Amino acid sequence: DGEFSAKRASTALPRCLLLPLADNKQKTDRVLVRVQDLIPEKADQLIWLRARVHTSRAKGKQCFLVLRQQQFNLQALVAVGDRASKQMVKFAANITKESIVDVEAFVRTVEQKIESCSQQDVELHIERIFVISQAEPRLPLQLEDAVRPDGDGEEEGRATVNQDTKLDNRVIDLRTTTSQAIFRLQSGVCQLFRDTLTEKGFVEIQTPKIISAASEGGANVFTVSYFKTSAYLAQSPQLYKQMCICGDFEKVFCVGPVFRAEDSNTHRHLTEFVGLDIEMAFSYHYHEVIDSITDTMVRIFKGLRDNFQTEIQTVNKQFPSEPFKFLEPTLRLEYTEAVAMLHEAGVEMGDEEDLSTPNEKLLGRLVKEKYDTDFYVLDKYPLAVRPFYTMPDPNNPKYSNSYDMFMRGEEILSGAQRVHDAQLLTDRANHHQIDLEKIKAYIDSFRYGAPPHGGGGIGLERVCMLYLGLHNIRQTSMFPRDPKRLTP
Amino acid sequence: DGEFSAKRASTALPRCLLLPLADNKQKTDRVLVRVQDLIPEKADQLIWLRARVHTSRAKGKQCFLVLRQQQFNLQALVAVGDRASKQMVKFAANITKESIVDVEAFVRTVEQKIESCSQQDVELHIERIFVISQAEPRLPLQLEDAVRPDGDGEEEGRATVNQDTKLDNRVIDLRTTTSQAIFRLQSGVCQLFRDTLTEKGFVEIQTPKIISAASEGGANVFTVSYFKTSAYLAQSPQLYKQMCICGDFEKVFCVGPVFRAEDSNTHRHLTEFVGLDIEMAFSYHYHEVIDSITDTMVRIFKGLRDNFQTEIQTVNKQFPSEPFKFLEPTLRLEYTEAVAMLHEAGVEMGDEEDLSTPNEKLLGRLVKEKYDTDFYVLDKYPLAVRPFYTMPDPNNPKYSNSYDMFMRGEEILSGAQRVHDAQLLTDRANHHQIDLEKIKAYIDSFRYGAPPHGGGGIGLERVCMLYLGLHNIRQTSMFPRDPKRLTP
Repeated sequence: DGEFSAKRASTALPRCLLLPLADNKQKTDRVLVRVQDLIPEKADQLIWLRARVHTSRAKGKQCFLVLRQQQFNLQALVAVGDRASKQMVKFAANITKESIVDVEAFVRTVEQKIESCSQQDVELHIERIFVISQAEPRLPLQLEDAVRPDGDGEEEGRATVNQDTKLDNRVIDLRTTTSQAIFRLQSGVCQLFRDTLTEKGFVEIQTPKIISAASEGGANVFTVSYFKTSAYLAQSPQLYKQMCICGDFEKVFCVGPVFRAEDSNTHRHLTEFVGLDIEMAFSYHYHEVIDSITDTMVRIFKGLRDNFQTEIQTVNKQFPSEPFKFLEPTLRLEYTEAVAMLHEAGVEMGDEEDLSTPNEKLLGRLVKEKYDTDFYVLDKYPLAVRPFYTMPDPNNPKYSNSYDMFMRGEEILSGAQRVHDAQLLTDRANHHQIDLEKIKAYIDSFRYGAPPHGGGGIGLERVCMLYLGLHNIRQTSMFPRDPKRLTP
Repeated sequence: DGEFSAKRASTALPRCLLLPLADNKQKTDRVLVRVQDLIPEKADQLIWLRARVHTSRAKGKQCFLVLRQQQFNLQALVAVGDRASKQMVKFAANITKESIVDVEAFVRTVEQKIESCSQQDVELHIERIFVISQAEPRLPLQLEDAVRPDGDGEEEGRATVNQDTKLDNRVIDLRTTTSQAIFRLQSGVCQLFRDTLTEKGFVEIQTPKIISAASEGGANVFTVSYFKTSAYLAQSPQLYKQMCICGDFEKVFCVGPVFRAEDSNTHRHLTEFVGLDIEMAFSYHYHEVIDSITDTMVRIFKGLRDNFQTEIQTVNKQFPSEPFKFLEPTLRLEYTEAVAMLHEAGVEMGDEEDLSTPNEKLLGRLVKEKYDTDFYVLDKYPLAVRPFYTMPDPNNPKYSNSYDMFMRGEEILSGAQRVHDAQLLTDRANHHQIDLEKIKAYIDSFRYGAPPHGGGGIGLERVCMLYLGLHNIRQTSMFPRDPKRLTP
């Protein structure tokens, strides 16, 4: 019925209707309230609300609905009487789950708390109900199944939803309290990261993602058709961050996608993830860089703890984990100390060997036992296991001025002081057998005066996963990309 | 001399030295001051400063240096006497431009203002000078040439630098006062955009850039090799923003790269640019979306005007332009009004024809004359010239609930109310002859209840270019990508 308008709806019959699509021919002054604002103080007010039908259940001459907005929900009632016909109750009972409705209703206090809803002290007595958008009757997954903790379902014969089904139907899965909480917290991480660095005098930069040469040796890089030639997707913004340092921005950060063509099908690898990147000139010692980064991380941890407790608790309901612990100042261990701890725990490995993933995890547990922290820095990696642009340790050429940072035993940042001298950089690239022609623009950046500098790149999804104690990075990527998943 | 350390430098000879690279074996408490803090109140203090050698000029037994940090600089002097040998003056005179030096010096007030420097009331009397990083003697461009206004050079026989030379040597060009100002202002645009939206309750999202299907018909899209298959680079985050709306985030924004494989070599096209994207559910009318976006833009304009005046003035020195004008509330014209204005100005075009670039520009001038604003919204575009997912105007099926926004007569945003009904979306896609199989995931997103919603995408580089009255988008992209430029 193309003639139906919002104005008519507010003054005349009908009391229930499947609303036509283009219901915005005229503007209206009607105000929609929010579910979380429906508290006993609003009792007996007549309000308009737009929400999803979370559940609907007919019972004789009544229909009980649970109406939902994000993590908030409340009970609503259509009962046959002065204001509602039998037909209207039937209409309400037939509205499919996840449909979006507009209701005009009186707010009424209830005698017994409604334990199953976020608004436990009031319910709505519906006067009119209109369907704004109708959901198909068969949902690919049920929201209550998608938030059930693993294991809980099995005992009671109730279903849980496997991860691929969730990801295949992400638009529905995103509506769950768990997903809403995860991605609100992720938004918070980005904001805390930027606000902290902006306050410290860092400048935000935008770096290109399409690049002409695969910088780090050419492995694990995606190729792009670029008009009549080929290009690559940037594996990190590091070279561009460094050019900004050579360009006198002194301290820079960027937030953006990073691409890795690794055929790794693990719980912690994605082919596209969001990098939180930092680069800064320092005065005398690269530990100034480490201090800036750890201070930023601590500000993030505190911000999450202080401002996202609801989100943390919500995620914990489905995925229980210990609160995230950190120290001030941040614990910094040298690589040789870490190897000694592992040796003591019975691990056989060489002093200049890289850490395997299981050894990183074990080290995380040893550090947690000894220092009671889920966050620490491992400093002075062996030079041989780091990229060519890493500054060697001036006191010991077998080691380097480089570091990783760990949360709950998994790496979230890799960083280093960079070689800022074109000649040394050339020598190091030759040592790594890298084609100098391909990195000419990069090396040339250091020919016209470059300050000592360092930085690092943080994986956003890893930070969120590990802070919340989750076990799969696909839970903290809205639309994850891995070797087997490109859609939705 | 690998044995040289910072500690020794501060207590003993020598007084001038080319410092070895890895000069951070030990930590030091020495504090480096900033050039902008060197004011008469600091007179007669002995300070340490790290800066670039902007110029150096020997004159008898003296050497005058101009030392620079970003947009700040000051004069420094090495004179033969008690504290400096003839050799040291010679050493100072031979330091190449753009080298980075550490100096220990006394701050001295000057009798006559030094007009050529930002610090006009003081100079430094150098006690010791060390070269931290040596620039090659031959610079590919001179900073003073790179900031000279077009035309100024010609008359006096002085050089200007063409844009390709600047871009080829971006690390040097970024050091100019103009570039420093442009990219600090750009950083400000991003921050103002996000802060405004966060305050309005928007959630920041991260959307994938590698996608499985070219959403908008397949034209102008870059192809990526993705393991054993092919993928594409996202031409906009729009589909993902919309999925977030269907996923109940209600109001979302994102900042990230957008890729367009258009072989357009114009002053305003890039193949990769930064999109500032907004999407939101609205209550009753899509003008709620327009109001949110224009309010955000106005907040950006005011923030730039109030907090980036130094940057604006700096850019204006090289590229003069009129201050950017805007109205509150923002001017909104309907497409038919615009066509009438163009008709009146003698342009021949049909009512449902799209605006050509020259007509957009002309319209901008007509609007400026009539309303005195550099920013306005053009609403209700003909349906035929908009993408398939655009909501038709319920009052007139030839038009649509869509809009563009313009700054100084050039488009900076394109947006619309989106079709939120799977059936209508299917019909519209069929009408546009789009392969339904390829957009199945997108259409399916609307099958389980979707609120009315709309949004738009803003080009960051265009906003910066047009706000500053610049004439080429490559000036506001740090490392621009166009069909002919992939490097640096």
